[in-house]
This record gives sequence, C-alpha cells and structure tokens, in this order.
Amino acid sequence: MTGWLKVVGLGPGAEAMVTPEVSAALAEATDVVGYVPYVERVPPRPGLTRHGSDNREEIRRAEQALRMAANGRRVVVVSSGDPGVFAMAAAIFEALEAGEPAWHALDIQVLPGISAMLAASARLGAPLGHDFCCINLSDNLKPWALIEKRLRLAAEADFAMAFYNPRSRARPEGFARALQVLREACGPQRPIMFARAVSTPEETVRVTTLGEAQPEMADMRTLVMVGSSQTRRIERDDVPWVYTPRSTSGSEL
Amino acid sequence: MTGWLKVVGLGPGAEAMVTPEVSAALAEATDVVGYVPYVERVPPRPGLTRHGSDNREEIRRAEQALRMAANGRRVVVVSSGDPGVFAMAAAIFEALEAGEPAWHALDIQVLPGISAMLAASARLGAPLGHDFCCINLSDNLKPWALIEKRLRLAAEADFAMAFYNPRSRARPEGFARALQVLREACGPQRPIMFARAVSTPEETVRVTTLGEAQPEMADMRTLVMVGSSQTRRIERDDVPWVYTPRSTSGSEL
Repeated sequence: MTGWLKVVGLGPGAEAMVTPEVSAALAEATDVVGYVPYVERVPPRPGLTRHGSDNREEIRRAEQALRMAANGRRVVVVSSGDPGVFAMAAAIFEALEAGEPAWHALDIQVLPGISAMLAASARLGAPLGHDFCCINLSDNLKPWALIEKRLRLAAEADFAMAFYNPRSRARPEGFARALQVLREACGPQRPIMFARAVSTPEETVRVTTLGEAQPEMADMRTLVMVGSSQTRRIERDDVPWVYTPRSTSGSEL
Repeated sequence: MTGWLKVVGLGPGAEAMVTPEVSAALAEATDVVGYVPYVERVPPRPGLTRHGSDNREEIRRAEQALRMAANGRRVVVVSSGDPGVFAMAAAIFEALEAGEPAWHALDIQVLPGISAMLAASARLGAPLGHDFCCINLSDNLKPWALIEKRLRLAAEADFAMAFYNPRSRARPEGFARALQVLREACGPQRPIMFARAVSTPEETVRVTTLGEAQPEMADMRTLVMVGSSQTRRIERDDVPWVYTPRSTSGSEL
C-alpha cells in the first residue's frame, strides 16, 4: 500500500461548505488525525481510525501523521476552516523540515477549505471587500509587542482586519488591550463585527462600533473583524449588512 | 414566485473545489449573472438564462441582478474564487445601498468559495500560515500612492502578503514598481511565489526570490505571494514547499 498525507480544511461547520475534494479524501482515508472536535466531525466507518488529540499538540500530531503516511497509511489531517490559516498545514511543514529525511519523498497535498474569515465575511456582506489583513491575536506563539505593532501598522495602512483567536480563558486580558489599541488608532465610530460559530446551529453575529465593543463579546469560537475607514453599514431587519467598497479616492492617505 | 439573490464563489477553477451549497444554488437558479468566463463555467440547462458581461461592468451587473431578483427571479451572481475578496459581493452592496429602497427587503445571501489566495497557498504548502495581508495591486479603483504606502507598511509589520491583479496589459509598469518597493523593504533574498490558474489544466507555479523576480512572471491570472522574514523553503523534486511557521520569537520587532 502506498501511503499519502492530505492536510484538509473542513470549513467553518456546515456540511454544505465541505468541498467535494475534501469529502473524497476523507472517503479514501485509513486514518484521520486532528484536534478532537474536528476529528469528531468525520463520521466513523469500518476501515477508518480516528486519532483525536488535544489543542496545542500540533507538532506531535503532525509527526504522528507523517509517520503513519510513511508507513503506508492514507492519512487525512483535519483542520476547521482552511488548513493554511492558523491551522495544521504550517505545523505539518515544520515537522517535515525537522523530521526524518525519508518524509521529504512523501506524497503530501494541502486541500483548501472555506476559512472562518471568509465565511464570517460572507455572512455579514463584504467587510473584506477591499485590501485587508488577518492577524492571530493569541500570544501563545509570538510576543504581545509584535501583535500590538501589527495592529498599529494595519490601522495606519487602513486595512480591513480579521482576527483569529481573540480571547481564551488563559488570556482574558489580551483582547481588551487589542480593543484599546484599535480604538486609539481607528476611533470609536469604526465598525467591529463578532461572528461566532458561523454556519453552525450556535451561530451568533453582532455588529457594533469600537466605542461600544466589550471584550466579553468574543470567545474562542469568535472571528472578529474591524472595518477600514471606508467600511459602510446598511441597516435591515436582520443584523446589518457591512461592506467595504472596492474603490477609494485615497482620502485616507 | 419569490425571488432571491445569491452571490457565490466558484472557487479557483476545479469543479472539486465548488462547495455543495454553491452547486445547490446554481441548480435552483433561473438566472446566472457574471463576467463572461465565470458564467461559462455554469453548464447551460433548460430554465436557466446565463447573463455574461464584460470586466469592469460590476455595478451595472449588480443592478441587473438586484432588479431581476426584485422581479421574482432566482438569481445567482458568480465570481471566481470567493465573492468577498475583490469580487462581486462588494459591488452588490454598493448597488444595493445606492439603488431602489425596495431592494433592501430582498432575500440576499453571500455563499463563500475557495479563494484564489488560499488555493495558491495550499498548492505551495503554507506560506500564509502566520499573520498576513491581502492587497489588490490594480490602481483602477484606488491611487497608486495608497498601494505603495500599504506595501511599505505591510513589510514593516512583517506580514506574509498575497497580491491580486498584479499586472494587466493596461498597466504594465505597476507591478515592476511594486517589486522595487518590496525589494527595498524586504531585501533580495525574500521568497516570492507566482501561482497561475491554480487547480486548472493551465496551472503553473514558481518560487523564486525578490532579487530574481521579473515583472513578466505574473499576468492577470497570477496570484502572487511574498513571504514574511520567517518564511521557509523546503526543497523537493517538484516546486519547493514554502511555509511560514506558526510561532516567532519576535526578532523582527
């Protein structure tokens, strides 16, 4: 048996957002590897072994997946959203580079998924419709000073912004500091959006301003977006539409 | 008949990357609206009218789609990639805000797709695996000075970068200037990636450095990515893997 490794994105939650190529990879797999709640999204079947592991176990999990593929297994590593955005693809290549030389000859593919960022953006309209940036607010893997520097430069560049991992029980104060930096840099009227568990039964979506935003509006499952100076809001019966126009005169220069 | 409007992403090209919810919307549509080559990706069938229009016709196309939905049609507006990333979703909301008040009550949904950026990133490994930004290099809809300012600030923030619309026949010189700005800001050794028509039969992928990059390496169908200071390259028989590690010590501060 010839092994392979596919690093796939399951999308934000809804089955209807899983691409056919990802479904096909899961149907051919002998082993599925990932964080427990994501592995549980893959139904059990005969011939499939599911290997769920804890959060923050990414490198050990990546090594396990590479080793199984080298041993002839057909291994799918699952991430929520897209595997290339703060997820397992980078961990796989870190483990590959540091690992056994034979792993370099493995058949590896990364299959993209609908990212949480783009699912949240679609739910709200088109807040990322112009130039934007995407920042992981967790300081587990980088110093807080770098996050703060990036927030200030992103505001100066007038990017729309998408934030992953805004808040966790282990770091309750970080997101409050991020909001303070953004309020100083963008002003209190700037729109901010909280999109939690988009496309799942637990979905909640809220649009407010930096002046009104509270740290408690986000948790680990929330994708946060902040508009650029050009971002607009259209009221309706549901949560308002938010969009960033495609064009700008450059008045923000 | 109750009309609706769905603004959908067809992904980068491969049918296997079209999500089931987008396929279902296309199966229920009476009308498909979009740029000619994207509309042609939807096979003709009885009961479906395909409305292809030229590039740079986005607002007129958006108004046409909103009007048809208001008249009871089931309208799908198609974009390549994701509709929220430099595509039709922002144009629809611009037209909605400026248009007839009755349109505000329309049933509108945006269905995300696999963006060109994330398909290209997957093809190459995980170059966007840490904080990144996404910039449209076309100066059709914004002044060049704003693009250049964003490039310099993105380099200072040490983002990985994804660039849409790097080069067109109408603006052959812009991309050469962008490369010069990036070389000055990031140095000649920084990896740059050219991913053309990813997931289609015409796919070509190239990894080089800013020092070696030539403007002719990109055309209208090329997604360009530049690594951060932390981005790494793993050689193999195919085009090298490129990834940006999840963690950083902050030495780039």
